[in-house]
Amino acid sequence: MTRTIVESKTQTAIIGFDQPFCVIGERINPTGRKRLAAELEAGDFSTVEKDALEQVACGATMLDVNAGVVYNSNPNPNETEPPLMRKVIEMVQALVDVPLCIDSSVPGALAAGLEACHGRPLLNSVTGEEERLELVLPLVKKFNVPVVAISNDDTGISEDPDVRFEVAKKIVERAADFGIPAHDIVVDPLVMPIGAVATAGLQVFALVRRLREELGVNTTCGASNISFGLPNRHGINAAFLPMLIAAGMTSAIMNPVRPQEMEAIRAANLLMNKDPHGAKWIKYNKPPLAEGEVAPGARGRREGRRRRAVA
Amino acid sequence: MTRTIVESKTQTAIIGFDQPFCVIGERINPTGRKRLAAELEAGDFSTVEKDALEQVACGATMLDVNAGVVYNSNPNPNETEPPLMRKVIEMVQALVDVPLCIDSSVPGALAAGLEACHGRPLLNSVTGEEERLELVLPLVKKFNVPVVAISNDDTGISEDPDVRFEVAKKIVERAADFGIPAHDIVVDPLVMPIGAVATAGLQVFALVRRLREELGVNTTCGASNISFGLPNRHGINAAFLPMLIAAGMTSAIMNPVRPQEMEAIRAANLLMNKDPHGAKWIKYNKPPLAEGEVAPGARGRREGRRRRAVA
Repeated sequence: MTRTIVESKTQTAIIGFDQPFCVIGERINPTGRKRLAAELEAGDFSTVEKDALEQVACGATMLDVNAGVVYNSNPNPNETEPPLMRKVIEMVQALVDVPLCIDSSVPGALAAGLEACHGRPLLNSVTGEEERLELVLPLVKKFNVPVVAISNDDTGISEDPDVRFEVAKKIVERAADFGIPAHDIVVDPLVMPIGAVATAGLQVFALVRRLREELGVNTTCGASNISFGLPNRHGINAAFLPMLIAAGMTSAIMNPVRPQEMEAIRAANLLMNKDPHGAKWIKYNKPPLAEGEVAPGARGRREGRRRRAVA
Repeated sequence: MTRTIVESKTQTAIIGFDQPFCVIGERINPTGRKRLAAELEAGDFSTVEKDALEQVACGATMLDVNAGVVYNSNPNPNETEPPLMRKVIEMVQALVDVPLCIDSSVPGALAAGLEACHGRPLLNSVTGEEERLELVLPLVKKFNVPVVAISNDDTGISEDPDVRFEVAKKIVERAADFGIPAHDIVVDPLVMPIGAVATAGLQVFALVRRLREELGVNTTCGASNISFGLPNRHGINAAFLPMLIAAGMTSAIMNPVRPQEMEAIRAANLLMNKDPHGAKWIKYNKPPLAEGEVAPGARGRREGRRRRAVA
């Protein structure tokens, strides 16, 4: 029963075959968020603070932290990203208790994040590319942390799921050479947009099963990529996540602020017998307050939406 | 590639491994609907008409017809149900073109329905009970129709999924003795309420796989039974249906008027590569009309809700 242990100073998050689905909040990431990138370059962390608090309030069990800003004042991320990563991590872990996922393609930023982080963060990521394997696996070993392994290699991202499986297998084997156990590898089998690759869903369902049964590893993905370019993306994502969970996927890097997706995950946990006595489902779906009744505390918009759905 | 062919006078519905999920509308059924039962006894078919039209408009590919009214004026359903079944079927097939599913536990009503129905209806149902096998399978053979096979027998409904599998296998074998092929058997593995049986979801996912792989049969179920007794039932159902579809289930007897469940099914069809070019998904999720733009035709409340979801 594979379990990947991720820790902050005070909390443990387990990604595991026998665990509820692990939601890794994706919001603290300036990629494609121009305003956030500009704020970070200017030393303004207000959006990061808001994103950290909101994602945890909405049910994220871990937060991904990416500091990949290309500064206008200095285009070399090897110089700018490591100190920014350190800063963002210090800020986030002062604010929330959940474990973190250190996300960068800049090796120096991964190292800086590992030094700044309390506990046992998840490192995001290594790929099957030779250079990445040689750079990242020693860090994984040195800091004794789990790592996300993305199934592409020096030939790029294959549309053939069998090739992606072989890349994942190669990473697991190389990690073993470093003394890193399979339960510390969380494989991302790569989710293609269904609008571009019609078999993208079937591919990933089959891959998750194989990764679980043949390699014994946990899995994660950028789930919302499935709906890229299509209308009503939340409707697609909210069906995709339960199907992924039924196939055996154990975590996703996603936006936990979206109520439709989070409700789908809570229902899927219940249906996979990972919500004892339906306690969490019932808690999140209490009947609406009677007229005149006063709520026990302030609730966010997630709660408001849920109530409407029940009524 | 198993296919179960169901026909009306003018339309064919295919339940099949390679087909989009088949939605069998459940609404024309007086069980638990006192007002509808009273209307039917009084010869008032207005609710049946409304239910038939609305279910087809919402996307049902087949309609279940159950005439199981216990008359106040005559408590013997063997006398009252056959003529009522005939009447309801004649009325429904005069109104809509989709194939029908004749649903009764009264053998005379099944026979009356088969005589009244055009084309090749689905018969609902036979069980593993000896008496039912002996009564229903000859009708199935005589009329050359497909049949729903429910996985309970003379010992009742087993909580052990292996027992339910064996019951289904027995029905398929007994049908074969009558010359009825496996592709004309649509097995209902029986969905238990997750609130009562915590493994109900896992059971049915595993059963659907086995029924498909080992017996080669199509499957159906009363999907909403999963959420019985729990809050926000639509939220549970809308995750359960994609998970069932990912496990290989090919149809469900359900309420197609519920937009949340139908959206989940459309998304699951897309994700299983059963919506070529995403054409159906895109059609149902067009962006909202611009201000002042006029809709091409009258739309029901399902459409209204969808627009809000997209906006």
